[in-house]
Amino acid sequence: MFHTAVCDLLGIRYPILQGAMQGGGGVELVAAVCEAGGLGVLPTFGGTDQKLRADIEGVRSRTTRPFGVNIMPMGRGITERCAATCIELGIPVVTTGRADPGEAVVRRLKDAGIKVVSVIPTVEHARRMEGEGVDAVVASGTEAGGHVGTIATLPLVPQVVDAVKIPVLAAGGIGDARGFLAAFALGAQGIQMGTRFMATLESDLNDWGRNRLLEMRETDTIVTRAMTGATVRCMRTPEIAAYEEAVARGADTGELKELANRVRGSRYGEGKGDRRQSAAGQVAGLIREVVAVRDLIEGMLADAAKLAERLPSVAKR
Amino acid sequence: MFHTAVCDLLGIRYPILQGAMQGGGGVELVAAVCEAGGLGVLPTFGGTDQKLRADIEGVRSRTTRPFGVNIMPMGRGITERCAATCIELGIPVVTTGRADPGEAVVRRLKDAGIKVVSVIPTVEHARRMEGEGVDAVVASGTEAGGHVGTIATLPLVPQVVDAVKIPVLAAGGIGDARGFLAAFALGAQGIQMGTRFMATLESDLNDWGRNRLLEMRETDTIVTRAMTGATVRCMRTPEIAAYEEAVARGADTGELKELANRVRGSRYGEGKGDRRQSAAGQVAGLIREVVAVRDLIEGMLADAAKLAERLPSVAKR
Repeated sequence: MFHTAVCDLLGIRYPILQGAMQGGGGVELVAAVCEAGGLGVLPTFGGTDQKLRADIEGVRSRTTRPFGVNIMPMGRGITERCAATCIELGIPVVTTGRADPGEAVVRRLKDAGIKVVSVIPTVEHARRMEGEGVDAVVASGTEAGGHVGTIATLPLVPQVVDAVKIPVLAAGGIGDARGFLAAFALGAQGIQMGTRFMATLESDLNDWGRNRLLEMRETDTIVTRAMTGATVRCMRTPEIAAYEEAVARGADTGELKELANRVRGSRYGEGKGDRRQSAAGQVAGLIREVVAVRDLIEGMLADAAKLAERLPSVAKR
Repeated sequence: MFHTAVCDLLGIRYPILQGAMQGGGGVELVAAVCEAGGLGVLPTFGGTDQKLRADIEGVRSRTTRPFGVNIMPMGRGITERCAATCIELGIPVVTTGRADPGEAVVRRLKDAGIKVVSVIPTVEHARRMEGEGVDAVVASGTEAGGHVGTIATLPLVPQVVDAVKIPVLAAGGIGDARGFLAAFALGAQGIQMGTRFMATLESDLNDWGRNRLLEMRETDTIVTRAMTGATVRCMRTPEIAAYEEAVARGADTGELKELANRVRGSRYGEGKGDRRQSAAGQVAGLIREVVAVRDLIEGMLADAAKLAERLPSVAKR
């Protein structure tokens, strides 16, 4: 079902990418998405080279299918180190986060036979990455969880589709068959989903995080620079709310730094019930249950196919 | 084509509402949308009762079809005065802007046989307006032009559809057949479009504004309180950029007031080539030509029908 150029490009059955999620999706989730026919993607943000190598080995011990590694270009040294490891270990797909890893890195990955897919927040970024030779772009809207720009998915996707010749996937706000089919109506040839994959049996989220996702309304996210320095859409927590309140009243750098440290310090509580800081998108309000990845993907595709069958009769009515 | 419960409810041929636009759409646009099978909607924001009566007469001299009047509840006196005029003059449809006009006003309109459609930015607002007895809601995303909330259209629409029993229309980011069909995939039974209707032969925009819409990229809008005190998405102009820059550096109230006055003072230049302040949505980057309203609506519906026919085969592939 829904076989597109993205499936052929990446060697996957369904055109569904799992957005890389630091603290949300590790080897279990990545392998489960691959086994269910999508493309699981490992995060590297904030991790060491040792951790990346262990994660890659972990995924390979669980699945023989293709998977991806996400490179978040937050510094040239880390970007080049991640790229070198992906090349050395023969990773089939690299996705790049919301900054340009640089034409030299893209060229090196491509020369090694790696497919490169760039997550982009604007038309201009899409054009630039196409110019650098990437294989596809993910047009990711401001409603997404994690690093976000300001343009929403619905107007962004068709504008990117019109601007580039390579395949476009849609990300941001997609959590069920309706969002999946809407992406195809907008001209996308696939989707990337993050937040919805966090509410699965295979995700890395602890019990607190899973329960929070089920309770959240669409208004319970907040965009903040407290997490990484760049704009990240997160679950609203008291620590992030305090940071943003300080930003709004023009607090000085010292106070902001202390408040950001409080956010980061509370980020990786170890207990099952501990509150954690986590990225999350506005689609969180749509999530009603924690399911297995395979059931999520198969259910979404079956529902989307049924919905697609109904649209022509709506059109004729 | 695309006949839904919204068409029966409002007595229109196609489930397309034109978003009320102060300075963007007057009697010519409203009448043209109605004549083309949609629902034109008159703005009232900032206008006098005399102006509203003249506008209503103007629309009625151009079309016998149903049309709407938008009430933007910025103050109780004005809201009640607008409602009384709509009742007195037998307006068939009233849309309400991004605030609750109050249950008493809704009740009065409904008792007079007027259909009430509320534009809402969150699930909670949708539930409240349904509780007050409105006939339908327009789930309007943050990418829309004019008064906006923070939730994007793609995640907002299905969450509203799940939360209420009355019909839901989608607004924000829709400018062509792709966005139209995406709205239906998300569960909407119709759409509201504003920005795209500004780039028509019948709109109130001057030459500068029309040319600006054709040039704009998706990144050329900005959300500001400088226009009305509430958050409004506008074309980015030097005056608004200066105001927002001052907000960001924590400027005092006096300075902000002066800068806001500069925005408002430059709002209604009379010459054809004069720069004006205007609301606009992120879909502006998708607009490539100024067309007649009838051609816009018929082209969009025909393209959407063709696109709907293709989706089942994509699903089976």
